[in-house]
Amino acid sequence: MDTALQSLKRRTADVHNLNMANAVLGWDHQTYMPAGGAAARAEQTATLERLSHEMFTSAETGRLLERAEREAGGLDPDSDDACYLKRVRRDFDRAVRLPAQLVEELARVTSLAHDQWAQARQASDYAAFSPCLVRILDLVRRKAQAIGYADRIYDALLDEFEPGMTSRQVDGLFGQLKAQLVPLAQRIFQNAPCVDASVLRREYDQTIQKQFAESVLKQCGFDFTRGRQDRAVHPFCTHFSRNDVRITTRYDKRYFPEAFFGSMHEMGHGLYEQNLDPSLEGNLLASGTSLAIHESQSRLWENIVGRSRGFWKYWFPKARAAFPGALGDVDVETFYRAINRVEPSLIRVEADEVTYNLHIILRYEMEQDLLEGRLSVAEAPEAWNAKMQQYLGLKPPDARRGILQDVHWSGGAMGYFPTYTLGNILASQFFAKAIADVPSIPADIEAGRFEALLNWLVRNIHRHGRKYLPADLVRRVTGTDLTIQPYLDYLQAKFLDDSI
Amino acid sequence: MDTALQSLKRRTADVHNLNMANAVLGWDHQTYMPAGGAAARAEQTATLERLSHEMFTSAETGRLLERAEREAGGLDPDSDDACYLKRVRRDFDRAVRLPAQLVEELARVTSLAHDQWAQARQASDYAAFSPCLVRILDLVRRKAQAIGYADRIYDALLDEFEPGMTSRQVDGLFGQLKAQLVPLAQRIFQNAPCVDASVLRREYDQTIQKQFAESVLKQCGFDFTRGRQDRAVHPFCTHFSRNDVRITTRYDKRYFPEAFFGSMHEMGHGLYEQNLDPSLEGNLLASGTSLAIHESQSRLWENIVGRSRGFWKYWFPKARAAFPGALGDVDVETFYRAINRVEPSLIRVEADEVTYNLHIILRYEMEQDLLEGRLSVAEAPEAWNAKMQQYLGLKPPDARRGILQDVHWSGGAMGYFPTYTLGNILASQFFAKAIADVPSIPADIEAGRFEALLNWLVRNIHRHGRKYLPADLVRRVTGTDLTIQPYLDYLQAKFLDDSI
Repeated sequence: MDTALQSLKRRTADVHNLNMANAVLGWDHQTYMPAGGAAARAEQTATLERLSHEMFTSAETGRLLERAEREAGGLDPDSDDACYLKRVRRDFDRAVRLPAQLVEELARVTSLAHDQWAQARQASDYAAFSPCLVRILDLVRRKAQAIGYADRIYDALLDEFEPGMTSRQVDGLFGQLKAQLVPLAQRIFQNAPCVDASVLRREYDQTIQKQFAESVLKQCGFDFTRGRQDRAVHPFCTHFSRNDVRITTRYDKRYFPEAFFGSMHEMGHGLYEQNLDPSLEGNLLASGTSLAIHESQSRLWENIVGRSRGFWKYWFPKARAAFPGALGDVDVETFYRAINRVEPSLIRVEADEVTYNLHIILRYEMEQDLLEGRLSVAEAPEAWNAKMQQYLGLKPPDARRGILQDVHWSGGAMGYFPTYTLGNILASQFFAKAIADVPSIPADIEAGRFEALLNWLVRNIHRHGRKYLPADLVRRVTGTDLTIQPYLDYLQAKFLDDSI
Repeated sequence: MDTALQSLKRRTADVHNLNMANAVLGWDHQTYMPAGGAAARAEQTATLERLSHEMFTSAETGRLLERAEREAGGLDPDSDDACYLKRVRRDFDRAVRLPAQLVEELARVTSLAHDQWAQARQASDYAAFSPCLVRILDLVRRKAQAIGYADRIYDALLDEFEPGMTSRQVDGLFGQLKAQLVPLAQRIFQNAPCVDASVLRREYDQTIQKQFAESVLKQCGFDFTRGRQDRAVHPFCTHFSRNDVRITTRYDKRYFPEAFFGSMHEMGHGLYEQNLDPSLEGNLLASGTSLAIHESQSRLWENIVGRSRGFWKYWFPKARAAFPGALGDVDVETFYRAINRVEPSLIRVEADEVTYNLHIILRYEMEQDLLEGRLSVAEAPEAWNAKMQQYLGLKPPDARRGILQDVHWSGGAMGYFPTYTLGNILASQFFAKAIADVPSIPADIEAGRFEALLNWLVRNIHRHGRKYLPADLVRRVTGTDLTIQPYLDYLQAKFLDDSI
């Protein structure tokens, strides 16, 4: 006779398998699906989403969960099973408030919206996308209302991506960050010599870019027998199990950083998923615990490792050998300065480490204005451009390089953007702790060895999957709550003192 | 208030979407999935298979189906709705006999077996695969027992692929065919001059092979905005909607026919799926009606069109321009004879049009012996080799070129092979009718025009999807039952009289 816990696990394993199947459909949508496939794909993905939701929120799941919780009295609260029950309870209480029809409708509308957005962006035609955004905003608001919130509507959405985080907390952090980042950026702009980054815009053969990046990824520890890299219009990482992790990238043969740092970034996400503890496989703990924790991994590999002097000490000679035409007359210091040039820019994903967060703050503020009705979809482009002027002193020449640049809103992912800056902050906090624990890490990186760093990340973060909520995990790993100081120290040391 | 028919359609649309999602997982498995993904993929696919089965065979579906049938009294029996009800009733009565656990287990075991078979085939190691085959044979037998049969166990399986067909009918057809084909083949071997096919084994650049084949496919009518072609170890065609049809192929840079005729073959399947009537989209009639009808399409394009003199009259100059190194010194007649050389061979998919069916008869007989227990899995390779000697005068040098060559048994697809020969027979029967209806077709093909042929196929076959059972469709299209005479006439005219 099965225990309630065993029955619950079987049920949530079905839910997990439906979700993973849906992830395969999503990956295919963005990599290989022919244009004609969009309408049927929306129906397929909506059906899977609804069935998963119905199964997870059914009365039977609720009964099994209650029985399993009653039986769990004797469990070690730190055991996988106790953590599984806590997380399923949290997920269940949230999901059960959402009507299945709304879940299905959001899945259908956003699946179709992806292609509509991609076309509108290509044509830089905001008017073509805005009816779609109106519809999505309405559905997202209904979703937030259904979930409910104590303080602000934004919290109902943010909690999906960053469980336990509220917009008041984000306001506090972003306020602190803005207060320190803006003068820091000013000083960096003043101090920075006039950096020439034109070497990055020479010709880099695409096939060799792929080979070079994959050789780096392999050495960093990404396992290509349990994952792969494909091309996509908009780079992302997804996973169908710890043994099947898909990263994507895009190539620009006249801009080296595009594919290379994109690959390092997605690899950071991918390493997290590949290194979950095998015991969590096949059920609802088998994933990264939150988007900020995820982003801490991608930004750590992309920036703290990938844009460091030590990293290129080892890799630059190999890059020069791979691209003799583009880099034959370049020295490592010129290259290092080029990939770290700080400068206000229009496109978030291409922004430097210092100004990047201003792009996030802009989006975070706009999302709140849109959700709370202070800003209409029609007025949004103007608001976007005004904020760009205010924070970065730039005016987007068109919607493609302005409000249409990001995929998120077309996917209904409002409340997602703040996790990027939280991830930047956490990347520094984690890396500082890793070095304190294993002081040889910087020397290892200079020698092209990543085992010590990866092992530290696996042991402290990756293997736990969704066992711990992000705030718990941060305290477990670093001994303190999330704090911006290590991040500010890192920016100061790298961009002002030039001491790392 | 919805009618029962509307509710039933919504329910079967969910089932259809689950099945289409599972097809995406299957496509990914065979094209891009990293090796590590196999275990989780087996769970995902088993879950989708079981949920689809449970939903389709539920008491609720049964009730809706009965109510809809009662309401359907006034329907035109030839209407989409009446045909939908008849086909769903047939599918339901069959599926409802299968326990969900068996369905799930078969999906899991065969998903894993695919990779085990691929490895065993690679290593030519039958012993490595035989435990798998024992397990699958046991599950397939249990499946057949659950479904039930009036006469022979084989019928329960054959009916899945070729609804309405029985093994007695197949015995009759194959007996007739064997009686005429063996002497015909003897005469062809005697009459045939010593054909030199070595030009096909020159070097053909793989990228150019792809471009050349795709240009032909486009001109034949395959719509690449509603489909695509990828590489796979074992070529196949699958579809997720009429607007998303995936064909796959494999390349051998030293054997032109591999990819080219493989592409033509899969395109034949693909055209069928792309040209279903849009009104059938998204539900259980949206697919080819049976495997034999499907194979009639693939073999028609691959052989009757693709290996005809008229076809190469138009395409050979283009092939010579694409492959000047390989074909620069070759004339069209030499090429035509090379691609039509008749000769006993080991590999089914590379067999010529005349000997191909002997490969099928061998498999058909062996499947019956295995299912009825006259032959054990351990003895199977010896039986295979003995039949190869008897029918084709050849002894396979290893299991890779013998019993391990085909993917089907690893997928649990026993009862499938006869549909290949039925497809060959029907291809000739359909093509003869098409020419009788539209006499300009051969001249069109010589001029590189395929609209008339494709339109005939769409109008008579493709658009109907699963509306009609295969035997009904054959009568509707040709005015008679399936008959082997047009096929024998075609072989006689092409290979003995050299008159087409």
